[in-house]
Amino acid sequence: MAESARRGRTRGGGGAARRAERTAVSFETARYIERNIPNFEVLNDEALEIIERNAETVLEEIGVNFPDNPEALQKWRDAGADVQGERVHIPRGLARKLCATAPSTFTQHARNSARNVEVGGRNLVLAPVYGPPFVRDTAGGRRYATMADFNKFVKLAYMSKWLHHSGGTVCEPTDIPVNKRHLDMLHAHMTLSDKPFMGSVTEPSRARDSVEMCGLLFGEDFVQQNTVMTSLININSPMTFDDVMMGALKVYAENNQACIISPFIVGGAMAPTTVAGTLTQVLAETLAGVAYSQLCRAGAPIVMGAFVTSIDMNSGAPTFGTPEAAHITYGAGQLARRLNLPYRSAGSFCGSKLPDAQAAYETANSLNMGLLSGVNFMLHACGWLEGGLVSSFEKFVMDADQLGVLHHFAQGVHMDENGQAMDAIREVGPGGHYLGCAHTQANFKSAFWKSDLLDYKPFETWEDEGARDTTQLASLRVEKMLADYQQPPMDEAIRESLDAFVARKKAESPDSFM
Amino acid sequence: MAESARRGRTRGGGGAARRAERTAVSFETARYIERNIPNFEVLNDEALEIIERNAETVLEEIGVNFPDNPEALQKWRDAGADVQGERVHIPRGLARKLCATAPSTFTQHARNSARNVEVGGRNLVLAPVYGPPFVRDTAGGRRYATMADFNKFVKLAYMSKWLHHSGGTVCEPTDIPVNKRHLDMLHAHMTLSDKPFMGSVTEPSRARDSVEMCGLLFGEDFVQQNTVMTSLININSPMTFDDVMMGALKVYAENNQACIISPFIVGGAMAPTTVAGTLTQVLAETLAGVAYSQLCRAGAPIVMGAFVTSIDMNSGAPTFGTPEAAHITYGAGQLARRLNLPYRSAGSFCGSKLPDAQAAYETANSLNMGLLSGVNFMLHACGWLEGGLVSSFEKFVMDADQLGVLHHFAQGVHMDENGQAMDAIREVGPGGHYLGCAHTQANFKSAFWKSDLLDYKPFETWEDEGARDTTQLASLRVEKMLADYQQPPMDEAIRESLDAFVARKKAESPDSFM
Repeated sequence: MAESARRGRTRGGGGAARRAERTAVSFETARYIERNIPNFEVLNDEALEIIERNAETVLEEIGVNFPDNPEALQKWRDAGADVQGERVHIPRGLARKLCATAPSTFTQHARNSARNVEVGGRNLVLAPVYGPPFVRDTAGGRRYATMADFNKFVKLAYMSKWLHHSGGTVCEPTDIPVNKRHLDMLHAHMTLSDKPFMGSVTEPSRARDSVEMCGLLFGEDFVQQNTVMTSLININSPMTFDDVMMGALKVYAENNQACIISPFIVGGAMAPTTVAGTLTQVLAETLAGVAYSQLCRAGAPIVMGAFVTSIDMNSGAPTFGTPEAAHITYGAGQLARRLNLPYRSAGSFCGSKLPDAQAAYETANSLNMGLLSGVNFMLHACGWLEGGLVSSFEKFVMDADQLGVLHHFAQGVHMDENGQAMDAIREVGPGGHYLGCAHTQANFKSAFWKSDLLDYKPFETWEDEGARDTTQLASLRVEKMLADYQQPPMDEAIRESLDAFVARKKAESPDSFM
Repeated sequence: MAESARRGRTRGGGGAARRAERTAVSFETARYIERNIPNFEVLNDEALEIIERNAETVLEEIGVNFPDNPEALQKWRDAGADVQGERVHIPRGLARKLCATAPSTFTQHARNSARNVEVGGRNLVLAPVYGPPFVRDTAGGRRYATMADFNKFVKLAYMSKWLHHSGGTVCEPTDIPVNKRHLDMLHAHMTLSDKPFMGSVTEPSRARDSVEMCGLLFGEDFVQQNTVMTSLININSPMTFDDVMMGALKVYAENNQACIISPFIVGGAMAPTTVAGTLTQVLAETLAGVAYSQLCRAGAPIVMGAFVTSIDMNSGAPTFGTPEAAHITYGAGQLARRLNLPYRSAGSFCGSKLPDAQAAYETANSLNMGLLSGVNFMLHACGWLEGGLVSSFEKFVMDADQLGVLHHFAQGVHMDENGQAMDAIREVGPGGHYLGCAHTQANFKSAFWKSDLLDYKPFETWEDEGARDTTQLASLRVEKMLADYQQPPMDEAIRESLDAFVARKKAESPDSFM
């Protein structure tokens, strides 16, 4: 892990990076994680082969549905699949063969090239929560999200040292018409932040708007030659590929933009109750989805996703941070690597209604497994609450702080002479102490990850200051970050073109809240 | 992982186990964890060899101190070490050779043989928090611990499904004289629980009392032939072996009782700031300590320990759940396995003053690394708060619930036909749902780990019930468990002999609070 553009470790775009460096406001953003640790693998080769064989059986024998999508069915027919009605039976090996044209790693460009991310390989890119219709904070409680909330989350993500990505629908701005909110959301990501972001997937036309707005921001030629969005395409598990999502996928693939293709599974409801059964379905679904993306455009950048939760069989509620979800996350990572595809999973998942201990246990379980399972793109890395119904302001900064733990752990162990510290051990000797020794003086500033949020004060100080819990500390941090926020500079002509595009598009059609 | 004596998966002592089964109160206790997952290894072979080479250099060149302990120095001289004053220089390879007589795994017997634990191999035994002078709960706040608190923790540990061990000083009963409290503590573990426990280490004479009381409980011959206590021997890092601790170790080793030999390290203060340097010191210290135990009695059961935290270089406070502590915990596990010794590390570590989100993040980070690092004996697995100053009632049951996650994850992935679930995928097909299918019906009860504490209710229900956070739910659970507690049955003659022993010992000497 190297930190910040300011240390000059940028890839490509040197001129732009230097310009960004001169104009950037003075806070640090960490570079995406480059792991120097192994992956944890829960499945042995025999288990992986069984699951792969079974997934091919699912694709061939049971097949997958592409409803209301004659164009997709024709593509499958042309590729050699057996299409019966809307059911596509994919001959053993065909989907895997089609997946081979997807790149194993790709660069997603940001308007500040120092913020570009490499998705794939041993890297981990962290992006915030996606999708909740509600927000919560201590002051205002739980309420429907608005565009004002959305803007705040984009600002917080921009200011968060350990977040590499601005995300997409950080909350649903429910006060903006459904058919227009993608415009405001993209405008916010583009103007309030300079980190990479996601495009709209709720209609193919909105995906096209996203591509057009990126053309204004990056230049049309740049967009055609480079990936500037990574967007989220969910599969309706089991084995159903919604025509709206597939339409958005097609727009992005044809424009060389990246998509995460991700089953959305609550185990026991949308997949079998067992881990191996769920992994089989996840693999079959992602094989079919990634293969379809390559039928739209061979070489289109794709991330294999697995959004998997378990279920409380009493209430039917999805449950998070559970051992079964961990098994699946680890196993799906192994399957993705055998496909040579970037992998998306894990996040700040929790079922709790509050950013309390339950939320933190569940989230920490999930974040740790995300790092060790080899995830390359972690959506929902901070801010998720109440099973994804709520974006929490306090939990956003609490989780974002914990992402620093992942960064430092991923560095692995330094084994150089300084790391071995034999001189320090010699200097101090039995019964001594290290606080004053030369090695400690030389290393203490960078030796340990340091939280920007958590309480390490003596008990008496903490008590005198009001005996605040983590949520209270987080409230103060949200307030401070928003007060400190400064908008990253932007070419005035570009901003005006974006403003004009949004205004024109909004004027073209009546508001719809459906 | 198999659950509970009631399922009949006991090892040895069939008759006693069956008797225990008939008389046990009706709550479940899980069997210790038998991992069916790999360990996570953060160091490669080259790094391990460097650390091992450096540790031998430390032992030979710098040496370790055994102050005020002529007997220990003589043992070292006899074994071939170069003793200069109280400094012992151990020739390269000698300590490792001496360690070879320690068993790689041992059985610690409980008075209910269904609760026996196997320490070592791929197993993980979970024991509660150890040592805090304070307790905290919502009703009473933070206060000095008393014997009444101690008894409550022993009862909670007895009732906790995922705890295998009753522990030792679950809190310091500060209302009992220092020179007598070990008697009451042991009496509580022996009579209020039937799980295995730890002995006293604060004086060699108290270790002898512990052995004598075990003689009354198990029979003297049984104690001489079997391990019935696992006690905690801390090393004063750097490289100092306190004579009181070494005296207690000697008593236990000579009586075939197990000890954990554990450096107590706050990184940057008692060890170098770097991971590799700390691991070198940890290895040197445990090699010397384990070797000494084998000089006391070759073959004495020993656990290699590593209690390591990082430090907040601003305040000097120890910090928990940090990436540096994780590196060390993983690395020390690798070093322990190369020594073929059982390994103790990790726990419900946190620095937070409250059982809030900070506490849970830090604890979950530590519990997860404990499982994946191959820990065999996890002390402090629940109830630790405020850097170990406080035993928290609420956090005890919160953490104990999370230990279920470790049990289920450690099972690994079931790959039999039921696990593969191909019939379910065939039955449901694209667009269907799994809730009603035959496979789900057959599996749903055991498919997912289920919390006994956390909230999975619909938002409206949760709000109607008072919008309780995890701490509030935990308070209710503590209350309920203590109300439901029933003392495990005990032979009346044994109880009377224990009562009499404690009374006699207390009468023999004046109270001391020093």
